[in-house]
Amino acid sequence: MELDQPIILTNATLATLAGPSGYGLIRNGAVAVIGQTIAFVGQSDAIPGDFQALPRLDLEGRLVTPGPIDCHTHIVHAGHRAREFEMRLDGATYEEVARAGGGIVSSVRATREASEDALVASALPRLDALIGEGVTTVEIKSGYGLEIGTELKMLRAARRLGRERKVRVRTTYLGAHAVPAEYKGRTEAYLTEVCLPGLEAAAAEGLVDAVDGFCEGIAFSVEDMTRVFDAAKRLGLPVKLHAEQLSRIGGTQLAARYGALSADHVEYATDEDAAALAASGTVAVLLPGAFYAIRETQVPPVAAFRAHGVPMALATDCNPGTSPLTSLLLTMNMGCTFFRLTVEEALRGVTVNAAKALGLEDCGRIAEGLRADLAIWNVETPAELVYRFGFNPLHARVFGGSL
Amino acid sequence: MELDQPIILTNATLATLAGPSGYGLIRNGAVAVIGQTIAFVGQSDAIPGDFQALPRLDLEGRLVTPGPIDCHTHIVHAGHRAREFEMRLDGATYEEVARAGGGIVSSVRATREASEDALVASALPRLDALIGEGVTTVEIKSGYGLEIGTELKMLRAARRLGRERKVRVRTTYLGAHAVPAEYKGRTEAYLTEVCLPGLEAAAAEGLVDAVDGFCEGIAFSVEDMTRVFDAAKRLGLPVKLHAEQLSRIGGTQLAARYGALSADHVEYATDEDAAALAASGTVAVLLPGAFYAIRETQVPPVAAFRAHGVPMALATDCNPGTSPLTSLLLTMNMGCTFFRLTVEEALRGVTVNAAKALGLEDCGRIAEGLRADLAIWNVETPAELVYRFGFNPLHARVFGGSL
Ligand SMILES: [Zn+2]
Ligand SMILES: [Zn+2]
Repeated sequence: MELDQPIILTNATLATLAGPSGYGLIRNGAVAVIGQTIAFVGQSDAIPGDFQALPRLDLEGRLVTPGPIDCHTHIVHAGHRAREFEMRLDGATYEEVARAGGGIVSSVRATREASEDALVASALPRLDALIGEGVTTVEIKSGYGLEIGTELKMLRAARRLGRERKVRVRTTYLGAHAVPAEYKGRTEAYLTEVCLPGLEAAAAEGLVDAVDGFCEGIAFSVEDMTRVFDAAKRLGLPVKLHAEQLSRIGGTQLAARYGALSADHVEYATDEDAAALAASGTVAVLLPGAFYAIRETQVPPVAAFRAHGVPMALATDCNPGTSPLTSLLLTMNMGCTFFRLTVEEALRGVTVNAAKALGLEDCGRIAEGLRADLAIWNVETPAELVYRFGFNPLHARVFGGSL
Repeated sequence: MELDQPIILTNATLATLAGPSGYGLIRNGAVAVIGQTIAFVGQSDAIPGDFQALPRLDLEGRLVTPGPIDCHTHIVHAGHRAREFEMRLDGATYEEVARAGGGIVSSVRATREASEDALVASALPRLDALIGEGVTTVEIKSGYGLEIGTELKMLRAARRLGRERKVRVRTTYLGAHAVPAEYKGRTEAYLTEVCLPGLEAAAAEGLVDAVDGFCEGIAFSVEDMTRVFDAAKRLGLPVKLHAEQLSRIGGTQLAARYGALSADHVEYATDEDAAALAASGTVAVLLPGAFYAIRETQVPPVAAFRAHGVPMALATDCNPGTSPLTSLLLTMNMGCTFFRLTVEEALRGVTVNAAKALGLEDCGRIAEGLRADLAIWNVETPAELVYRFGFNPLHARVFGGSL
């Protein structure tokens, strides 16, 4: 089928997610796609006159959801850390892994050495895995450069991925990912000499949609991140934060104070933190792939997020160290299994709430006037989508009105 | 590429698994395939004269493993249990799920109602998911009939799957999966009237490669299973057992006494049980998908299996209730993450040891004279295959010498 012409999809089970809660299910539903846009959403047997003449495509009851959105990835990076994975299972100590060149430094070294072309080439199979499950928008962070040139190279590679494939890319500057070896013990100097000027250079080149950091005892403090967030504010860029992943040092409260788009991981956030996120309209982005891979046992405070009305999103956190995961479907299943999200929360987490976590208002729901980013599945209910794992029932994907 | 003609694959990184331990790595390796058989394995620069003239296919360093084997599945069944998954996450009690028609009874009802054609059609997408990751042999159990006709229908559907796709199917009779509602409280009568005559009928029709049972407090006792195993013995059929999954009631010792091919699940097995399995040459089949989905916390005694030299295999346990999993790659990652298997154990678990768990000697390794069942991967090391999750790096698959 070919959607380069206007078309109306009929006999679909639509999970529109258009309302504040529920799947927004429309059985025997219809969606008219004209150009890049959803022009009509409703019942197949109540299609208005304007759309009656459009070519029809009968979906035979298949489930149609908004195109999934992966709102937190580090998909651009060079190399992999499989050897480290293997060594740890063979009983190697942390020191032995480090001596063998493992850890984030190995990803930084490889990413610095890689050309922009090589970064694009190595990211494509990972991006294609996401797209193969219907993903229409993907956020991509820098953060394995930790020097200005490489940070920019990563962001340029990310932008190029959005041109190489039919997918929308949102870039995030993550200069505050780690302090590189050459600045060990000199975090302030790293911020002054690399991270902040790098941000300005990247923003000047139009490479930055948002600014992120890793706020953690082993990385950047709340004070450090305040400097970064102030710089983002001066540049008019929204912020987000890796917060409360391994301990509670105040990142979530910081994110809320700056009206961040999202606070991510948040395993160690509290009820008080949830209240702050609710007040600032910040999305809690849960990353069960990292939780799984590092064998974390502290689950994020889902009940508090629910009680305070914090929107929850789910993302792969695709990265070479703590979450070499490239399936948003598996992420949903893990969100339900590990964090006891409901199916509805899992589905909202990769659609409407993921869009919110990226500050996007034109996608994540099936509604008139929004982008025609859709996934068509060989299942009949949202639960079927989430309950299996290691299975991909994608039937077709519509990106900006084209298949 | 086309392997219907004799060919030699060159410049491969071979993980032959041919020896008693280690990957059996051959760098710059070559494999000659003639007919269905591996005719030569060695170095690309030491190809004997006989094979020098064969057409060559340069694999550019890609990893080649034996074709993966999924040695424990319930892939033939009708319906799904997604609604149950959703209800439990919505907070439904066990009784509410049961009242809504959930549990194994719903799979039994749907499977009884389905035609053989429908069973084949519904299993194909699941089988295709496995094949898409290179799987060349898959075990398929009956056990959702619990009446003679439906048990036979399931086994016939399983055999047909092996004709519909280029994959080898091994069938297992699992009449002792559960006591059906109509025999509630009358387990002995169920065995006498259904399970044992069903086995005889299935064996007479040539539908049974092995005999299995679910030995558990909620299913069949050691005494019950002894009757089934004695019947299998009379028919000359090998046995295997779902043992020690939820509690320790002696299934593993029973399996060992009967020289079973495998004891499966075995989370609650002990050091003593491991010793018994080692003595009988029985494979411990670990099923991390079920461990994950039912949120089990008791891990199988891997250290004891290692200490006693029990071969360990890994399988999906693909079933609609406790393991709706159709990825052997994800199974390997979960085996490492949850059970701390090494990469080598994970790879042996889906190749040489999975073959052993099915009583097959002609596959599971790359060695001269064995079937040419191979998987060619877009990675360079076994660790890369296992470390990612939700990612499929399959490049090509060779089944019985053909692509
Ligand atoms: Zn991250
Ligand atoms: Zn099973």
